[in-house]
Amino acid sequence: MKTLARTLLITAATLLVCAPTWAQFAKAEDAIKYRKSALFVMQQNFGRVAAMAAGKAPFDAKVALDSATNAEFVAKLPWAAFGEGTDKGDTKAKPEIWLDKPKFNDYADKMQAEMAKLSVAAKTGNLDTIKVAVGGVGGTCKSCHDAFRQ
Amino acid sequence: MKTLARTLLITAATLLVCAPTWAQFAKAEDAIKYRKSALFVMQQNFGRVAAMAAGKAPFDAKVALDSATNAEFVAKLPWAAFGEGTDKGDTKAKPEIWLDKPKFNDYADKMQAEMAKLSVAAKTGNLDTIKVAVGGVGGTCKSCHDAFRQ
Repeated sequence: MKTLARTLLITAATLLVCAPTWAQFAKAEDAIKYRKSALFVMQQNFGRVAAMAAGKAPFDAKVALDSATNAEFVAKLPWAAFGEGTDKGDTKAKPEIWLDKPKFNDYADKMQAEMAKLSVAAKTGNLDTIKVAVGGVGGTCKSCHDAFRQ
Repeated sequence: MKTLARTLLITAATLLVCAPTWAQFAKAEDAIKYRKSALFVMQQNFGRVAAMAAGKAPFDAKVALDSATNAEFVAKLPWAAFGEGTDKGDTKAKPEIWLDKPKFNDYADKMQAEMAKLSVAAKTGNLDTIKVAVGGVGGTCKSCHDAFRQ
């Protein structure tokens, strides 16, 4: 019993010390703003490459590579900001994110994997290779937004 | 005269073809949103390390390193979005930015240099070393905001 009591005490103390999962942000609103900001920066960089792939912007291998590199890096950042308690507020995130975190995380992982492939493709400087990789990223954006974004 | 006429024609054609400097963004508002987003993501990451340096958050060498790495990378991004025509709108940027671009760019470069030093400091895992580097970054934030932010 003494051991149980001790365990409970330690658990209670841990719960008191552990802040909510958005605690790396000062408040939930900051977490929401953070993930939206990161996703916007990512989308703008990806969009630049996608526009070249679609023939809507002239192909510039250097700009494509820089943009793909930026998008790949920033794609890692939003996910830490989807902690518990960040489902309400100025956000289009669906409650389903917190109801099925494994599926959401899987989508996030897939997007990052495709973004890494785009970065590799951009290094070739070959527009056709880039087009294929852009399609791969685009698919992961759409499937995640369809499932988890209002 | 023929050469002059030809030069003028080429210049006119170039001006028609060359889009404004925010052209890597679809509209000026996107450029403003982009730089604000990048600066927010940077500030949140830097702020996490600064809080540890100030003793306001428990020191976690891994989190400090990740955050400093993120801040260093994202610190490179906002500057492309301060093109001509992005001085008006939902922004606290002072007109002085576009009146003294060399000084503004110099401040931006200094901040990035200090952010790179912070990244190096975070790799040591030594809080005292990190504290010094945080101070260096903080100084560059302040001097630029004092001069160029409303």
